[in-house]
Amino acid sequence: MNKNIIEYKKKTKISRSLFKKSLKLHVNGVSHNIRYFHPYPFVTKFAEGKYITDVDKNRYIDFWMGHWSLILGHTNDIVTKHTLKQISHGWMYGTINEQTIKLSELIIKYLPKMEKIRYVTTGTEAAMYAIRLARSSTKKKLVAKIDGGWHGYTTDLLKTINWPFSESESNGLINEEYITSLPFNNLEKSLDILKKIKKDLACIIIEPILGGGGCIPANKDYLKGLQEFAIDNDIMFILDEIVTGFRFRFGCMYSKMNLSPDIIILGKIIGGGMPIGVICGNKEIMEKSNTTTNTKLERTYIGGGTFSANPLTMISGYHTLNLLKNKQSIYEKINKLGEKTRLLLTKIFDGKAIITGTGSIFMTHFLRDNVINITNASDAARCNTKLLQEYHLKLISHDNIFFLPGKLGIISNAHSSTDVKKLADASIEFANSI
Amino acid sequence: MNKNIIEYKKKTKISRSLFKKSLKLHVNGVSHNIRYFHPYPFVTKFAEGKYITDVDKNRYIDFWMGHWSLILGHTNDIVTKHTLKQISHGWMYGTINEQTIKLSELIIKYLPKMEKIRYVTTGTEAAMYAIRLARSSTKKKLVAKIDGGWHGYTTDLLKTINWPFSESESNGLINEEYITSLPFNNLEKSLDILKKIKKDLACIIIEPILGGGGCIPANKDYLKGLQEFAIDNDIMFILDEIVTGFRFRFGCMYSKMNLSPDIIILGKIIGGGMPIGVICGNKEIMEKSNTTTNTKLERTYIGGGTFSANPLTMISGYHTLNLLKNKQSIYEKINKLGEKTRLLLTKIFDGKAIITGTGSIFMTHFLRDNVINITNASDAARCNTKLLQEYHLKLISHDNIFFLPGKLGIISNAHSSTDVKKLADASIEFANSI
Repeated sequence: MNKNIIEYKKKTKISRSLFKKSLKLHVNGVSHNIRYFHPYPFVTKFAEGKYITDVDKNRYIDFWMGHWSLILGHTNDIVTKHTLKQISHGWMYGTINEQTIKLSELIIKYLPKMEKIRYVTTGTEAAMYAIRLARSSTKKKLVAKIDGGWHGYTTDLLKTINWPFSESESNGLINEEYITSLPFNNLEKSLDILKKIKKDLACIIIEPILGGGGCIPANKDYLKGLQEFAIDNDIMFILDEIVTGFRFRFGCMYSKMNLSPDIIILGKIIGGGMPIGVICGNKEIMEKSNTTTNTKLERTYIGGGTFSANPLTMISGYHTLNLLKNKQSIYEKINKLGEKTRLLLTKIFDGKAIITGTGSIFMTHFLRDNVINITNASDAARCNTKLLQEYHLKLISHDNIFFLPGKLGIISNAHSSTDVKKLADASIEFANSI
Repeated sequence: MNKNIIEYKKKTKISRSLFKKSLKLHVNGVSHNIRYFHPYPFVTKFAEGKYITDVDKNRYIDFWMGHWSLILGHTNDIVTKHTLKQISHGWMYGTINEQTIKLSELIIKYLPKMEKIRYVTTGTEAAMYAIRLARSSTKKKLVAKIDGGWHGYTTDLLKTINWPFSESESNGLINEEYITSLPFNNLEKSLDILKKIKKDLACIIIEPILGGGGCIPANKDYLKGLQEFAIDNDIMFILDEIVTGFRFRFGCMYSKMNLSPDIIILGKIIGGGMPIGVICGNKEIMEKSNTTTNTKLERTYIGGGTFSANPLTMISGYHTLNLLKNKQSIYEKINKLGEKTRLLLTKIFDGKAIITGTGSIFMTHFLRDNVINITNASDAARCNTKLLQEYHLKLISHDNIFFLPGKLGIISNAHSSTDVKKLADASIEFANSI
């Protein structure tokens, strides 16, 4: 048995026994497919600052940070203080509340051309509604997404997510024929595909940085080219900034890139780690969903949901963003640490790996099969993903550093250069072993 | 102007001014269509026990209880204590945790024939995955739902929700042709429809009590008949117990009714008011979604999501259910109060209204247009829904009693017979005025 697995099993005995229980109760023992890793995931006891601690009292430096939703780290003092207060004041009103207005004011001010917000509870829901709005606005049905683009599990977008992209993602789907997929960062080929379907195409949806697909930034020209095509052909251009929104600066990527999407969707950071999804657009688009001013036949029916804009999520999101707004040096700090991490790991792996990402997000890709660059999800998928899992398991078992195995990492404001140093040292050992 | 509106505007001045802000930021000022009511919804400041208090310091007895998710009322001591502790220990791990195992053990033990659970974040998501599992298991595509059946906003089920059922619910939809709808509580007609499509039918999904459709219990024979047809024809029988699960007893309705659904979905109460959705089924069905043991071509791809099984929801759900389990007299109390409420209101409205519901949930339907009984959503929709809105606005403006206008009410453990008395007294005034 692999040395890391032996070491991991030795130090996670309570986790192992609890996970056996979890396996009996849950599919694969988890409630999110990616949370399972071999031989079994540890069971978390608590989290604080940059650390996540398991039931065996192993304390890990956490680069996963709640699916990248915690830009301030766990249990930030100010956010904690206000969420504690909110718990005592009620966590579920099911009515409108001032917290929502405060959060929206903060978001809208920093999102050029966006005028109205609707809160939902997850990114999956936000993506579903964005597609519905686009179909409704254009009276067309097809949607174009990216090979490796990930927008949650909505039936409307469940195609070409995992390699091989030519294979269906799931049994039990319908509508796959309404989804067309484009090769990321290849404008010429993408336009060729788009031209053939433009008459029936409602929207193009894309992440400015492929997240689940491999932490790969889109070329600016690629995004510009897609947007231009969309404008010229009455097609909606939807940016999924669930991962990137408020991640690199106080605002979204689109404004810095001089893009002008019709709809953006947000999540993760803006809820401070509490359940959230957001759809933003201009008045004209968003007001289609007004059920008071539109008849049943006129409207686009979008949620909502029981938990939308609940005061706990709103307060957590507001104080997270407010803190970032008042201390934008946080972005400078985490972006620099991210840059440093990429440089260090690039040097350490000395040609064996490419470190993708930008600002505070990064991902290691171990090269093989003639992959010499990582510009799209196919490149990422063709890398040695098994070695990446081993690397991450080595970090967990031997160095008390946690990445969700196989996934990208992020720097939060709770991290410091010491943590980057620890990651680098641990990576040197691994680099020497491969 | 209506007297109630004048009274309401007078006492909700700060709400009025805040709602103007909210209108600028949000579609119709809200993040859930039903939360808007005329002339404008009040803005909540905090909630405690049976009360919800607005920004103008009006304190209302709350019969809405967070979209019916709070069976213990707001800020129950025990749930509050544990959620406060959890906030300090981290609210977003993105990893598996002991809280999830504890909650699942509690749920599964009381759900006969259900073996495995997957947590998601909303009921909308749970419904979407249940449909996907059914399609995957049966290799068929059509789904049958009920006229007036409400399972959230998923594209897979967005049809025949609001009256008139013959009109599409929304622009921008696809797949409406995959959805067939059945007349509630009419077994003969339902079977006639089902027989015609049985070869292509993947599932029948139904709430044991129509919730959004009018708080109308299904006849036991109707449910039995649908289930029998499903069993005979390789069709999955899905019960949506999001509203009813753990609402009337410690467990679901299906076991008490001797039903044996293939899949059930849960939400609301089991998260104690925190964002949750659940899909349960036997091992065979649920294991189709195991992404470790199934290839891409074999699997049914279901979430998850970033916020699934987050420790805050899990702890809130666990302590809510644990308290209910240890003190099942709560059910006896709230069911009796519900019964008393229905009897009192029936007497008060003296033939002008029918009060539907069972146990702790109830809804007032003001009769008109030859409606003499409320057995399905069409009956409910043909009632005087405008008068119901007026009744609820009168309760809000004059009596400090809150129902979300037009919607059903629930009794929580925070309520007492005094509250029922207050509701009755306020209703007498209204009955005398119509």
